[in-house]
Amino acid sequence: MNKGRLEAFSDGVLAVIITIMVLEMKSPHEPSLAALRPLISVLLSYVLSFVYIGIYWNNHHHLLHATQRVNGATLWANLHLLFWLSLIPFTTAWMGENHFEAWPVAVYGMVLLLAGVAYFILTKALIKLHGRGSPLATSIGRDRKGQISIMIYAAAIPLAFARPWIAGAFYVLVAIMWLIPDPRIERTLAQ
Amino acid sequence: MNKGRLEAFSDGVLAVIITIMVLEMKSPHEPSLAALRPLISVLLSYVLSFVYIGIYWNNHHHLLHATQRVNGATLWANLHLLFWLSLIPFTTAWMGENHFEAWPVAVYGMVLLLAGVAYFILTKALIKLHGRGSPLATSIGRDRKGQISIMIYAAAIPLAFARPWIAGAFYVLVAIMWLIPDPRIERTLAQ
Amino acid sequence: MNKGRLEAFSDGVLAVIITIMVLEMKSPHEPSLAALRPLISVLLSYVLSFVYIGIYWNNHHHLLHATQRVNGATLWANLHLLFWLSLIPFTTAWMGENHFEAWPVAVYGMVLLLAGVAYFILTKALIKLHGRGSPLATSIGRDRKGQISIMIYAAAIPLAFARPWIAGAFYVLVAIMWLIPDPRIERTLAQ
Amino acid sequence: MNKGRLEAFSDGVLAVIITIMVLEMKSPHEPSLAALRPLISVLLSYVLSFVYIGIYWNNHHHLLHATQRVNGATLWANLHLLFWLSLIPFTTAWMGENHFEAWPVAVYGMVLLLAGVAYFILTKALIKLHGRGSPLATSIGRDRKGQISIMIYAAAIPLAFARPWIAGAFYVLVAIMWLIPDPRIERTLAQ
Repeated sequence: MNKGRLEAFSDGVLAVIITIMVLEMKSPHEPSLAALRPLISVLLSYVLSFVYIGIYWNNHHHLLHATQRVNGATLWANLHLLFWLSLIPFTTAWMGENHFEAWPVAVYGMVLLLAGVAYFILTKALIKLHGRGSPLATSIGRDRKGQISIMIYAAAIPLAFARPWIAGAFYVLVAIMWLIPDPRIERTLAQ
Repeated sequence: MNKGRLEAFSDGVLAVIITIMVLEMKSPHEPSLAALRPLISVLLSYVLSFVYIGIYWNNHHHLLHATQRVNGATLWANLHLLFWLSLIPFTTAWMGENHFEAWPVAVYGMVLLLAGVAYFILTKALIKLHGRGSPLATSIGRDRKGQISIMIYAAAIPLAFARPWIAGAFYVLVAIMWLIPDPRIERTLAQ
Repeated sequence: MNKGRLEAFSDGVLAVIITIMVLEMKSPHEPSLAALRPLISVLLSYVLSFVYIGIYWNNHHHLLHATQRVNGATLWANLHLLFWLSLIPFTTAWMGENHFEAWPVAVYGMVLLLAGVAYFILTKALIKLHGRGSPLATSIGRDRKGQISIMIYAAAIPLAFARPWIAGAFYVLVAIMWLIPDPRIERTLAQ
Repeated sequence: MNKGRLEAFSDGVLAVIITIMVLEMKSPHEPSLAALRPLISVLLSYVLSFVYIGIYWNNHHHLLHATQRVNGATLWANLHLLFWLSLIPFTTAWMGENHFEAWPVAVYGMVLLLAGVAYFILTKALIKLHGRGSPLATSIGRDRKGQISIMIYAAAIPLAFARPWIAGAFYVLVAIMWLIPDPRIERTLAQ
């Protein structure tokens, strides 16, 4: 089975997700600077989610690049990942509109956590298909970064109820960690 | 005529359908857990439709993979399928917002039924083009699964007026039946 | 310059146009059959526009298939066509919501007319680039169907103010005329 | 690393951006010509933004065509550009709904300015990757047009507070300047 359409479909879904989020930033009815002020938290929330979808697209790009073939299980593992990512516009809007209050921040983190787990499942499904000694398996290795991300999300969720901004800072931290391109896969591919 | 653009266009439409459905899950104006409660049926309805669009994408992927060429009739049979699938965001929103009441559940089933019929027509148009002895025709075979799905939808629609949850359970049943990847096409392709 | 990205971008825009139109069919807040009745004209209007976008995608597919290369002028002629097509969700919603009243029906026709003219300009730009004796030019020929469509739209627009349903019938007529696949290009390609 | 998916993802995002802008043109509830009048400034604003997204797609197409490979830095430079472009539907709606008042016109210009800077950064990242003597670097040259655009935006923003229409005229001027296809890249590619 060919990986081309899996990439095309994922690109399509991610492109729509990253773009429709901006629809939640409703244009104010008044032409004043003051009318933009309530949108600041919506914009911040949008920027964070834009970066996250960008990271997922980027990692997905790397992962599928190292992939030779796909099967039914990986198609569904990929759709499972897209499902959690498709909830990001909702959690982004809820968090932005409510100025980073406890519950929206916690739910935002839960969706990130579940997307992280879904990505982990996708890598496992791909490794199972290609074999443990395959270049794909070697390039992913132990995936410490993915595991650390999931741990940080898990820590951030309860923290959101005490200090939402700390949870928010944790999400930003994970994003920064991922913004640095993954040297493992690039190194292996270069060999 | 080339099948590449047919796949690309279908991927685009399915990617937009699967993603805009989430726009119906309006983010609540209050940052409390209670504010999420009315969205549970919207979310359930979204999950079901997400899985259905995923199944159609998956089957479409398999079907087109076994396809060698397309003509005017298959282009229109494909658009006809996309038309019924494009109504799924509407029926999903109606069913979710009205907590799985009789009419929305019945109309949801009617659209599934018509999409199922449209998929059947598409397979027939492709078999006609490739010939009865073609690998495509052999791989589809008698398409029992497709026929059973249509029968289950047809049974569910009247049941929705007596017990909507039974109709809903039937839709879930069909989805589970399809989640198992189609061994017929995979087997034939492997030969 | 490569035609691949022109096709990909056009497919993307057409896929979004055909799908976001359905967002205008707002799901009713009540779960009764009566609640669907006001949506009948919205649905009819959606079906007509879905078929039109399908026709444009189909013809665009044929046209680009016969195309060997593109240049700056054809890129802009193509964007000009996409611009008019992008207004179809707006005119569709206006016509559907207002139950096929005079002005919405007339404006719907104007956008169809301008899209028809834009398609004509695109074919001219492509013929100019490939030369009058090219297979593309031969396959398009005098494009009687395109010219007749434009004339029917031009006749329908004033008629919309007397009898909107006659104008609507004219739009359906053009759609039926185009549903029959274009034998000119197919014939030339087959040679 | 392959540039194909970067192009596909960018095409997807630009296709969604250019199309969802039209959702801001809400269809009026009355079927009269008078009901369309308040939409004139929304339509003008839409046309301007449609042309701008078209220009960016066109330039992006040329730029990536001359590109041989991409790396992590260029992927992120590209996402940075898409981020600013994704804000255009918002600024378009705000400017259109408020009939080209000072603040919306100024903010519209700021987003154009930042998108211009992001495009400049993208070209620098690509030149750095391909080397100063590469065909890509030669074809871009000193990029006077890009630099002039940024200067015009910077001049237009303060002017928006004195005479919004002058700022608007400046945006139209830049658009016209870019509508003429870029001879530099085409010339170099032709060699």
